[in-house]
Amino acid sequence: MTGTEFQEVARPGQAIDALSTPRPVIDEGRLARNIERVQAYMDAHGLLFRPHIKTHKIPALAEQQVKAGARGINCQKITEAEVFAAAGFDDILITFNILGSEKHERLAALHARIGGLKVVADSAVTIDGLSAVFAAVKPLPVLVECDTGGGRCGVQTPGEAAELAGRIARAPGLVFGGLLTYPRPGGHEAVQAFLERTLALLEAAGLPCPIISNGGTPSLFEAHLVPAATEHRAGTYIYNDRSMVRAGHCGFEDCAMQILATVVSRPTENRAVIDAGSKALTSDLLGFSDYGHVVDYPEAKITTLSEEHGVLDLSACTARPAIGEKIRIIPNHTCVVSNLFDTMVFHRDGIVTRVEPVAARGLVW
Amino acid sequence: MTGTEFQEVARPGQAIDALSTPRPVIDEGRLARNIERVQAYMDAHGLLFRPHIKTHKIPALAEQQVKAGARGINCQKITEAEVFAAAGFDDILITFNILGSEKHERLAALHARIGGLKVVADSAVTIDGLSAVFAAVKPLPVLVECDTGGGRCGVQTPGEAAELAGRIARAPGLVFGGLLTYPRPGGHEAVQAFLERTLALLEAAGLPCPIISNGGTPSLFEAHLVPAATEHRAGTYIYNDRSMVRAGHCGFEDCAMQILATVVSRPTENRAVIDAGSKALTSDLLGFSDYGHVVDYPEAKITTLSEEHGVLDLSACTARPAIGEKIRIIPNHTCVVSNLFDTMVFHRDGIVTRVEPVAARGLVW
Repeated sequence: MTGTEFQEVARPGQAIDALSTPRPVIDEGRLARNIERVQAYMDAHGLLFRPHIKTHKIPALAEQQVKAGARGINCQKITEAEVFAAAGFDDILITFNILGSEKHERLAALHARIGGLKVVADSAVTIDGLSAVFAAVKPLPVLVECDTGGGRCGVQTPGEAAELAGRIARAPGLVFGGLLTYPRPGGHEAVQAFLERTLALLEAAGLPCPIISNGGTPSLFEAHLVPAATEHRAGTYIYNDRSMVRAGHCGFEDCAMQILATVVSRPTENRAVIDAGSKALTSDLLGFSDYGHVVDYPEAKITTLSEEHGVLDLSACTARPAIGEKIRIIPNHTCVVSNLFDTMVFHRDGIVTRVEPVAARGLVW
Repeated sequence: MTGTEFQEVARPGQAIDALSTPRPVIDEGRLARNIERVQAYMDAHGLLFRPHIKTHKIPALAEQQVKAGARGINCQKITEAEVFAAAGFDDILITFNILGSEKHERLAALHARIGGLKVVADSAVTIDGLSAVFAAVKPLPVLVECDTGGGRCGVQTPGEAAELAGRIARAPGLVFGGLLTYPRPGGHEAVQAFLERTLALLEAAGLPCPIISNGGTPSLFEAHLVPAATEHRAGTYIYNDRSMVRAGHCGFEDCAMQILATVVSRPTENRAVIDAGSKALTSDLLGFSDYGHVVDYPEAKITTLSEEHGVLDLSACTARPAIGEKIRIIPNHTCVVSNLFDTMVFHRDGIVTRVEPVAARGLVW
């Protein structure tokens, strides 16, 4: 039993107002504008663009992105790449250190199926592990991940980056694929400096660097300030969310995803309870003090979430919602909302256009 | 394409160490002990016990709970109830105000299929909406939800509770089913006082009150301090988690769910990065300052999550994990972790015993 037979599936032509809540819906017009706007910027600056599909996990959307001009896609785990490879995508960069025999086995099978698989590494352990597997298969391109201030994975210095690049180039079964970074927002000067210094070391070592991949949505429109990069990766821009509005990347009118919710209780004058909790909005605060922007009552604060309830503080509101009323919420973080739902409903002016399975969600690595 | 064909499915007899990470796994021995311990307590105090299935969403686990002595189950939304009704459960209480024609339609269809469906209401709007639907069908029992300090849904006073009870009793198609509360942890005195006063009003009005339902895991072992209650509802106790350890409900050795993760990067002396991020652990902090308890390195702090990465601060650690090492994490909140995975792996002493579909996850209401 998979539960699929119990799923309320929206039908094209249906009004989204008639859908059961809580329910994320995607505005087709905003979606298309977000895709066009970012691709036009990349084209204007001669940057290749590689969308990160972790935001939507839907092959049909990646097709829209590629049709608009994107070159290849970015996945975060092997199962995502498997789903997209099966849907016909060939140029796939997995931006993760892949370790362990159970993952190596699947990665090798995927590499045998498509021509353009690439991964990253930030340690000798990761490189040596990949080399042991791919020596016996076709060579796998590996990029060196650099920490240019993001504070997550990545080598800490240009010297380490050049050293690992050499290790990859010498490793049987591997090809040095280039450099990759996921910077902190606004960190373009640090990125450019790190890349320039690393490229000088690579040149001195006689190591060509085919791809130089920069990333992130929040400061996407500063990508041209990193001239060393050959490509940019971004995911969230396709839907946008409250955190991207705060970052100055877009306005609320560019947020393609809204979550429809119903007011189910008004226990006190200042309290409303909706049917969207942490299993619809997620608990991602991302520095906000509440769990989403209520489009229809912008002064309302979603102060507390339990799993299927959201509690709203209405004390700052002039108008207040009634029991049974449907409201629209722009989530703090759209990528984690996508990850909760088996299907995504799309609409134009409130009329359902299509329902897409969120094909790559719910899968273990 | 549902993605199912890309799922790595564990096999009984396999070692959990051989599974790809991140991966929640459930210890069969701890699971069985948690079920027995709570049921024995309820039996000793003459309380009926109604497990909340939102924690696991797996019919086979509810069968274990009922076999141990539970009477009926608790669901939080209609799609959960539909999945469990299809699996043979008949006594189902949905603890939610159900509003809107799209939900009423499904609720009526479900009520036609099983004998023991019950719901709650905390407003005249909810009651009148249900009455309009069920007048033409068989009568539906409705309990009045009371806010005894939990600050979520529920009427605020015993007077309001009695008034709504009367409204339900008079409404065509509805039957007054009793009272329900989801109290704040440790709030047993307030619960008992609220229930006593309400029961006195109901008695004066000549309204019998068949079910008096109290709930919650954190102070579950104080359930006997609410003698007015006829039943108790709880979900989290079956798996337990870090928040239940903090609440004093259990110890770490009672946490049946652990998340297996791999250390994929050690960029600096004090930083480790694992492959479990917010799409495995969720962002639920529940008052903690980090995102889970690392069993193998208890001094490590999971300070930051991105979607597929968790960043650990190792500065307080004496021993430190190596790249490639697998670690075990007890999540802050188990119920939201369940909700992220299509399948759940069970084991005894590290050997897989069974893999259960998380049948009721991913479904819209």
